[in-house]
Amino acid sequence: MFDDRISVDLPKTNKMHTIYIQGNKMKCNCDYVLHCNTLEPHYDNCATVWETSHPGKEYPKNEDGTIRLPNKNLDKLESDVLYHLGLDTKNYDLPALFGDVKFVCIGGTKHRMREFAEFVSFNVFHGKNMKLVNLTKHSHRYATYKVGPVLSVSHGIGIPSMTTALQEIIKLLHYAKAVDPIVFRIGTSGGLGIPPGSVVVSSWGLNGYLEKSYDIPVMGRSLKLPAILDKRLSQEIYSMASEEDEFQTYLGGTMGADDFYRGQARLDGPFCDHTEEDKLEFLEKLSEMGVRNIEMEAPAFAALTKEAGIRGAIVCVTLINRLEGDQVSTEKGTLLQWQKRPMAIVAKFISKYLDSMNGWK
Amino acid sequence: MFDDRISVDLPKTNKMHTIYIQGNKMKCNCDYVLHCNTLEPHYDNCATVWETSHPGKEYPKNEDGTIRLPNKNLDKLESDVLYHLGLDTKNYDLPALFGDVKFVCIGGTKHRMREFAEFVSFNVFHGKNMKLVNLTKHSHRYATYKVGPVLSVSHGIGIPSMTTALQEIIKLLHYAKAVDPIVFRIGTSGGLGIPPGSVVVSSWGLNGYLEKSYDIPVMGRSLKLPAILDKRLSQEIYSMASEEDEFQTYLGGTMGADDFYRGQARLDGPFCDHTEEDKLEFLEKLSEMGVRNIEMEAPAFAALTKEAGIRGAIVCVTLINRLEGDQVSTEKGTLLQWQKRPMAIVAKFISKYLDSMNGWK
Repeated sequence: MFDDRISVDLPKTNKMHTIYIQGNKMKCNCDYVLHCNTLEPHYDNCATVWETSHPGKEYPKNEDGTIRLPNKNLDKLESDVLYHLGLDTKNYDLPALFGDVKFVCIGGTKHRMREFAEFVSFNVFHGKNMKLVNLTKHSHRYATYKVGPVLSVSHGIGIPSMTTALQEIIKLLHYAKAVDPIVFRIGTSGGLGIPPGSVVVSSWGLNGYLEKSYDIPVMGRSLKLPAILDKRLSQEIYSMASEEDEFQTYLGGTMGADDFYRGQARLDGPFCDHTEEDKLEFLEKLSEMGVRNIEMEAPAFAALTKEAGIRGAIVCVTLINRLEGDQVSTEKGTLLQWQKRPMAIVAKFISKYLDSMNGWK
Repeated sequence: MFDDRISVDLPKTNKMHTIYIQGNKMKCNCDYVLHCNTLEPHYDNCATVWETSHPGKEYPKNEDGTIRLPNKNLDKLESDVLYHLGLDTKNYDLPALFGDVKFVCIGGTKHRMREFAEFVSFNVFHGKNMKLVNLTKHSHRYATYKVGPVLSVSHGIGIPSMTTALQEIIKLLHYAKAVDPIVFRIGTSGGLGIPPGSVVVSSWGLNGYLEKSYDIPVMGRSLKLPAILDKRLSQEIYSMASEEDEFQTYLGGTMGADDFYRGQARLDGPFCDHTEEDKLEFLEKLSEMGVRNIEMEAPAFAALTKEAGIRGAIVCVTLINRLEGDQVSTEKGTLLQWQKRPMAIVAKFISKYLDSMNGWK
């Protein structure tokens, strides 16, 4: 069932940059991809900065870099069913199947995530004609492909669909004992004041009430989680993406709406009580706040990866400039070409990471 | 491309039950399926009750029963791209392709909606070996099958995914000039205090803050829409469903959560700050409010069908009893059998409707 002909030896601990901070014996466990003084000095889940930036919160990684989940109820389960992935801890040897995963890339459609797996297979691992198998086909929900240490998973449209997949992926990475994984979301979006076809690397997510948080009702009350993405990771991806000359890349905020039509101030849904002027005023306001694009997942993705202490990044192409219109009417072939841009950027990051690790390629 | 060998002549107007109310010349345009005095006298979109129950709101149907959309901006569009369905008004003859649609059934997975189309083809139209084609495959988002006047469409998981599909379906029905269509959602859910495998027909949707409304952020402010389903339609479906003796059917409230784990008070997500006692207290509270099951779409489905003046109903099977656990660990084959129960009920409704119309079968 699991066709995985690409095998890469992952280091069990990331020892490359073990350093001492201010005479303190805490070790930095950032496995940097780029070495550049202008970037944020550490990843958000680095041992040396965790306590300062997450006071009172347990460190999210074990010593070997595997994920330590904050929910202690899981220890009481005899087996855990990851229902929407069609996997469980009883019938599947998750460490054997997914223990080598270092990169997870999620995105809306099955088609796109299969294409990403093919893209990585060809461009990172030179593995032409690799047979890709949808590992979670039997779940009838999400599609999952694996290429060496790269997992590519579809998440559907919108926050509830994405968080259902993401939370089960986080549990999967925990059970599989994956070492310090990095999760990307590649997607499509509407841009604000930038040319269609541009790419946005997200710094943070903004919810529909214009707050940088993911607000989730838990037992009748709102749980507010900060929606800030790993600063250094987004900077690294941005600096790599900027090397492309075919299109422009921007680093900025991303609004994640809960609706495609009114929720994004569109005028072309079945229902609309606002005017063109209302719409433009709202979109200009978003622009002024630093929002570069609008999609439907950013705040929750930012919040949950942050909560799990997993580095996460969002890289989206913009299909239209929302200041100029609402309809996505560009020719399908062009749209499909544009959708490859976030793939190319994430694949380049993965490639550079592997290059930077001794003995990886 | 459009394989649609089953053709049924639909009446252009529903004249069956033209009656006069209190000496008033307004005509009732309910196309009743069941004739029973104990049911709500009219559907919510009947001309005779519209003004009383929707004061100041324009009547949602034209004289011939086709849909009149409240968004006048659509009239200004030269062509309208239904992006996530991969259809548009310029390149597709929507009235020719979808003008005969009377029933739309939406549900989470492509697999299930294909199965529903097959079920209807076999059991309602005796159309064995009908070749089903996914009419929106090229969109890479949702799957659509058509069997005579029945459209079966997948909507993914959660409100934003479902509303993206539903809003484009509503526009499609409008452009296609479909006559007084009825929209069903068939789904899976967690039950409250009822045996797994039971079916719930929803009376209303409850959001995560325990309100019978769908709250959607529009340009930074909350738009609150009532989440009440068509009373007579739910009663009709319930009374038909209750004829089944293989399983129990309930008529009650349905909570639509925005998250599968914490958002449904589960203890088995990657994150959990509450106890078993908190969970049970919350679920008991829901029970006392009349909630029979929890899924992830109900409030928005109820609100948008109501807003469009389209009769809508939700029929879900329960896969677990949430008062007894969180994990969906029943054997896959049993789950797939249970998922056919809402299909059977909706197919029976469609069958009875067609029987009740002269010359339909």
